[in-house]
Amino acid sequence: MQMQSSCSLPRPKSPPMARSSIIPSSLSDVLVFTAGAFLALLIFLGLYSFLSPTPIPNRLFSFSPSFSSTSSHIDDTYDPPDETFYDDPTLTYTIDKSISNWDEKRRHWLKLHPSFSGGRERILMVSGSQPYPCRSYHGDHLLLRSLKNKADYCRLHGIELFYNTALLNPSMNFFWAKIPVIRAAMLAHPEADWIWWVDSDAIFTDMEFSLPLDRYRAHNLVLHGWPELVYKKKSWCSLNAGVFLIRNCQWSFDFMDEWASMGPQSPDYEKWGKLQTSTFKDKMFPNSDDQSGLVYLILTGRGGWRDKIYLENEYYFQGYFAEIVGRLENISARYIEEERQGPAVLRRRHAERVFASYAKEMNVQLGKQKGADTGPTGWRRPFVTHFTGCQPCSGDRNKVYSADNCTLGMYKALNFADDQVLRIYGFRHASLVSADVQPLPFDYPRSEE
Amino acid sequence: MQMQSSCSLPRPKSPPMARSSIIPSSLSDVLVFTAGAFLALLIFLGLYSFLSPTPIPNRLFSFSPSFSSTSSHIDDTYDPPDETFYDDPTLTYTIDKSISNWDEKRRHWLKLHPSFSGGRERILMVSGSQPYPCRSYHGDHLLLRSLKNKADYCRLHGIELFYNTALLNPSMNFFWAKIPVIRAAMLAHPEADWIWWVDSDAIFTDMEFSLPLDRYRAHNLVLHGWPELVYKKKSWCSLNAGVFLIRNCQWSFDFMDEWASMGPQSPDYEKWGKLQTSTFKDKMFPNSDDQSGLVYLILTGRGGWRDKIYLENEYYFQGYFAEIVGRLENISARYIEEERQGPAVLRRRHAERVFASYAKEMNVQLGKQKGADTGPTGWRRPFVTHFTGCQPCSGDRNKVYSADNCTLGMYKALNFADDQVLRIYGFRHASLVSADVQPLPFDYPRSEE
Repeated sequence: MQMQSSCSLPRPKSPPMARSSIIPSSLSDVLVFTAGAFLALLIFLGLYSFLSPTPIPNRLFSFSPSFSSTSSHIDDTYDPPDETFYDDPTLTYTIDKSISNWDEKRRHWLKLHPSFSGGRERILMVSGSQPYPCRSYHGDHLLLRSLKNKADYCRLHGIELFYNTALLNPSMNFFWAKIPVIRAAMLAHPEADWIWWVDSDAIFTDMEFSLPLDRYRAHNLVLHGWPELVYKKKSWCSLNAGVFLIRNCQWSFDFMDEWASMGPQSPDYEKWGKLQTSTFKDKMFPNSDDQSGLVYLILTGRGGWRDKIYLENEYYFQGYFAEIVGRLENISARYIEEERQGPAVLRRRHAERVFASYAKEMNVQLGKQKGADTGPTGWRRPFVTHFTGCQPCSGDRNKVYSADNCTLGMYKALNFADDQVLRIYGFRHASLVSADVQPLPFDYPRSEE
Repeated sequence: MQMQSSCSLPRPKSPPMARSSIIPSSLSDVLVFTAGAFLALLIFLGLYSFLSPTPIPNRLFSFSPSFSSTSSHIDDTYDPPDETFYDDPTLTYTIDKSISNWDEKRRHWLKLHPSFSGGRERILMVSGSQPYPCRSYHGDHLLLRSLKNKADYCRLHGIELFYNTALLNPSMNFFWAKIPVIRAAMLAHPEADWIWWVDSDAIFTDMEFSLPLDRYRAHNLVLHGWPELVYKKKSWCSLNAGVFLIRNCQWSFDFMDEWASMGPQSPDYEKWGKLQTSTFKDKMFPNSDDQSGLVYLILTGRGGWRDKIYLENEYYFQGYFAEIVGRLENISARYIEEERQGPAVLRRRHAERVFASYAKEMNVQLGKQKGADTGPTGWRRPFVTHFTGCQPCSGDRNKVYSADNCTLGMYKALNFADDQVLRIYGFRHASLVSADVQPLPFDYPRSEE
């Protein structure tokens, strides 16, 4: 690896180590002192460059030698020839074959690629949709806007996003399709500490919010759900399997093997269908599904997985759209009011790259306000609004919801989110249901008083 | 700024500086030497932490104090309170008002945000499409796949992507709509050295290729085009205005003001329509358009802009789809053959984050092969394949092209690109026209011999 110029200082000259008999003793003390100083610096620089390389952007491949980049920096795209798990012919990306010792394999890879070690935890967001057009009129357009929404969130938060449109295992379709994708992503991204699966119909409606990862340090799988609904109500809806965080570790590979064994490609598929249907009285269709399967594993404790599964419900890790969309106008108005009444810093224009600083300021402001809570009675922006049951692509929505409720609701949520991004570019939507945008005056919204 | 933990080592204890008279002289030498060592380390750590802050990922805003991130590092999202251009009430994001002294304003902002200075040049890719569903059946699905394609390219190359779906100036629609977006993006991203506008119907078909930015160091605007077609043929198609690089500088703001003055919101719109139509005999419609306007400025030298405009044609900075799509199967087969015959490193599985290293290896391999050129007779992957004239969203394609040619062509290009990404996840398409994917065996494609 080449050294980053800011890390590699010119090496000092070799220190004089012997004291000459003709040198006076005070001067010899000075020489010895200086020798110690130089040697310490040499050792320190050597150790430091070995232990703490600094992560910096990829140096890109050049079209031809004459077009090579002139800036020199540590190349974190360098892949040493040392053998890693990638060189093991028995390791596959497909779900049919188990993986073992992943933690060790990953650790070894990270040791060879130290620029990816340390610092904050890395998240790879993964989402996806079908490889052919949607049946419903708005379907693909909503998917497009939803992908843009995810890309916006990831750009603001320095998170990588992989959007997949390939069915990796032809038998594992619909909601089962994500498991092979997540597995392949873990192998392709050993630097990622977490994979964050987000369904295509889940929209980020609070661009300022970051996952409180410290909360999950003792767990490997995080979903939105309520233990009392699992254990007391035995409801298949006690959690939502459309948005989850899963740690990139051996436990997760083993867990996904068990989870996938309930899927359509498994010889036990029918058995699981019957078991889930008999266990969950509110399950709406007879076939085994990923969500009921998860609830089953938690409810019964089968396999011992539940100790590492965190059911989050203190914020909208994912929020049921029907209890959110009707409140979005009010939430939007309350935030504008906070910005109007609050300190000037809330209205200050700024670069997108310093977004997080201003998110922090807003958080401080909201912390002073009553009712600025997350949840159905609060007016804090919901983190994620999930249009579960709306099926915008196929149009086969749950008949409990009207088309308007779903489609219009999605546009509102998308515009609500877009406003938070467009703000940085000097604009906002004329309303949550309008595609039209308006320029924001200086010191908005105080300038509108 | 807080210090990155890997940069701040535990401070050593205070060194003993005086030599006691009861300590033997050899031991006293040791003490003096050690004292020198400690003092040097103290001084070095102090100077280093002061002079060399290291850029690292954003520290994210926490939901509440109890959920704060435990890792401490330099916060490059910090925005000092010092006044910048953002605090100037006369500066607007909208296109109707000119900006002046942008280079100085940007320089000042960068000085206050040193983590964004230096290193390789930063690019922000900008693209977009309309805020309502497409008229044609495949339209939005192709836009979705195209956005995914751009997101893939940007993820592989460490480039940020902003996809816009808002019409910022209601009068500047269709091809004019990009100018207000680019302008707003420059203001929102002062850290970006270049804005790379890429039309929604332009697909990245060589994931390994990086822009040779050194080539453009003396220019501010880069487009694909041919000077001879500008000056000799006087063709409105002598360049393509759907893909370009524009430097984030004062020249570009001034240029965009002039360029936009030919647009529908301008009182000179009709005059420009007549002027362009009379100048370019092959112009296909009477209204002023952005592309003809650009050619006009280069042809006539009006405004002196052309000295800073680079017409690139030595590679497919953007490539005309009709001369590309028929060759994609062959190109794909040639690359597979190179990987099969070439050194093992070309077939080695690897993490996505070290993609660039392997791109470099392939580039070396291709450099040895005859015919591995870019252009209509070579078999090098085209960098960008642009379906100009296909209008996948409205369906109002140029009748010279069949629907198949356009739609099928786009799917082929998208799958061709997707194969390069899916490879990293262990899969590839069954064919360029198939949505089905297959797992790749170890040592593919040599394993298929």
